Amino acid sequence: MLCGGVGAARFMRALAGVHHATDTTAVINTGDDNSLYRLAISPDIDTVTYTLASAIDLDRGWGLSGESWRAMDALNRYAKVMPSGSAAAPTWFSLGDQDLATHLYRTSRLAEGASLTKVTAEIAAAWGLEQRLLPMSDEAVSTMVTLRDEGVEVPFQEYFVKCHHQVAVAGLRFQGASEAQLTGPARSALIDSEVVVIAPSNPLVSIGPIRALPEVDKLLGRRRDSVVAISPIVGGVALKGPADRMMLELGHEPSAAGVARLYASIAATLVIDPVDEALVPAIEATGMRAIVTPSVMSDIEIGQQLARRVLAAGRE
Amino acid sequence: MLCGGVGAARFMRALAGVHHATDTTAVINTGDDNSLYRLAISPDIDTVTYTLASAIDLDRGWGLSGESWRAMDALNRYAKVMPSGSAAAPTWFSLGDQDLATHLYRTSRLAEGASLTKVTAEIAAAWGLEQRLLPMSDEAVSTMVTLRDEGVEVPFQEYFVKCHHQVAVAGLRFQGASEAQLTGPARSALIDSEVVVIAPSNPLVSIGPIRALPEVDKLLGRRRDSVVAISPIVGGVALKGPADRMMLELGHEPSAAGVARLYASIAATLVIDPVDEALVPAIEATGMRAIVTPSVMSDIEIGQQLARRVLAAGRE
Repeated sequence: MLCGGVGAARFMRALAGVHHATDTTAVINTGDDNSLYRLAISPDIDTVTYTLASAIDLDRGWGLSGESWRAMDALNRYAKVMPSGSAAAPTWFSLGDQDLATHLYRTSRLAEGASLTKVTAEIAAAWGLEQRLLPMSDEAVSTMVTLRDEGVEVPFQEYFVKCHHQVAVAGLRFQGASEAQLTGPARSALIDSEVVVIAPSNPLVSIGPIRALPEVDKLLGRRRDSVVAISPIVGGVALKGPADRMMLELGHEPSAAGVARLYASIAATLVIDPVDEALVPAIEATGMRAIVTPSVMSDIEIGQQLARRVLAAGRE
Repeated sequence: MLCGGVGAARFMRALAGVHHATDTTAVINTGDDNSLYRLAISPDIDTVTYTLASAIDLDRGWGLSGESWRAMDALNRYAKVMPSGSAAAPTWFSLGDQDLATHLYRTSRLAEGASLTKVTAEIAAAWGLEQRLLPMSDEAVSTMVTLRDEGVEVPFQEYFVKCHHQVAVAGLRFQGASEAQLTGPARSALIDSEVVVIAPSNPLVSIGPIRALPEVDKLLGRRRDSVVAISPIVGGVALKGPADRMMLELGHEPSAAGVARLYASIAATLVIDPVDEALVPAIEATGMRAIVTPSVMSDIEIGQQLARRVLAAGRE
């Protein structure tokens, strides 16, 4: 699977009910990774990890359930004396006390010279996961967002968290992507897996950074018939996050048909919800086959049914 | 004041009752500073800060009162999967959730290019302190301890915390001290202050690193008459920590007289407790004057009386 955060994590959890976890590999976006307090933070990897471990906070949609915020509360004391121009206590980005442990461990291991691939596997093992979770790259790729009204380019998390993704976007850039490499295990997974699933994640900022790495589109294009994408846009709106507005702002139709146009060169099949059945001709016009099945994973049964259809489509 | 951690902090708190806080400057040992999880940790600065803010945990002797340990508890999950040879989750060193905020802020500010002097002042201001707290240097100095039985040299915190300072010491080295500089404000304080007090801290590993910086002994020697040291050894034992054993192991007499021999070249006066009155001749033989007054700060009244005597001695 090519994965972003929440949507990918939910699909993977459903998939675990119909396919061996040990035969499942996630290649996860790291374009959102950032460094605060010199800690290495990997939001999408953590969302997938915590979700598969049933430890995610479902209401908040990120971080751990039963979390406490003592460190962040204590940071407010320092935020008040922080000189103007300093961003040393960025109170717009909350790290829970338990979540901090993940970042502390990752940071220490990276400083010891371990690769992000290695550390991600260790953290997944610590949570008892059997799926193979892989960062897309061990090298830094930073998704940069140009804000339309301000005309400035900011790192993704600043757009997403600080601005609550409420501002219009005028451009995207994946800094470092053309020099970075897909990891060896991720490359093997994209070549050797029976089926590649593109998760119902934001096509531009979640799947986009993975595709911006050298070779990825070429590798997928070569095996296009067994690549199945799940549309994250249902009835013209994103199930989660700003994918619909962002697509519109960047010149893409915010619909399953718009998603098809983005994926047609790398995936033969697009799975869409019955609410979008009228878009089948538009999707087929891109060269993709459309499979219509409930794709809003409101309960585990729908999720597992979706997972079965996706796997079957990739095997056909 | 030349300061280590606990003893220095307690004396400074007493001093605040008899002398304007705004006219008090602490030059604090940073030889114990270490980096865990890439966080910049300054144990002695924090002990002085938290103590003066009445926020220290008095029972534990370090860290904040009312502290929680959620991040450290969560780290245990990762400690279990940590590959052998890794020290990424060093569970021997506990950082409380609120205390983490101090390290996160310091780390961020240093990464922004602020000096440790500047950050220390900001943190002191955040706690409402009026005393001027200065790190001895803005450059890294690392106190290294050679363990006698193992024959290996380890950073101070590993000796102090991991080994609970229960192992014998065969040597001390202040790595980086000869290339590091006393900060400008610390230098001015040592020259211009009416009185310099050497706090009742470990002479070897708390005051030692400060003295290992270029110029310090020379600056103090020039104004020796107004430098007053308080013996941290009372009745042959350290009030706190391993100073007595460490002095013995490193060839110094573990007594107020042994302290006098260490300080005679830089301080004219040594303040000792009545229990050590018999040592007055031995102290005077070093060329120091001995002042006998209760120096075990078991209550605030004794501490303030001690502070008055120390100031008076320095002004004579």
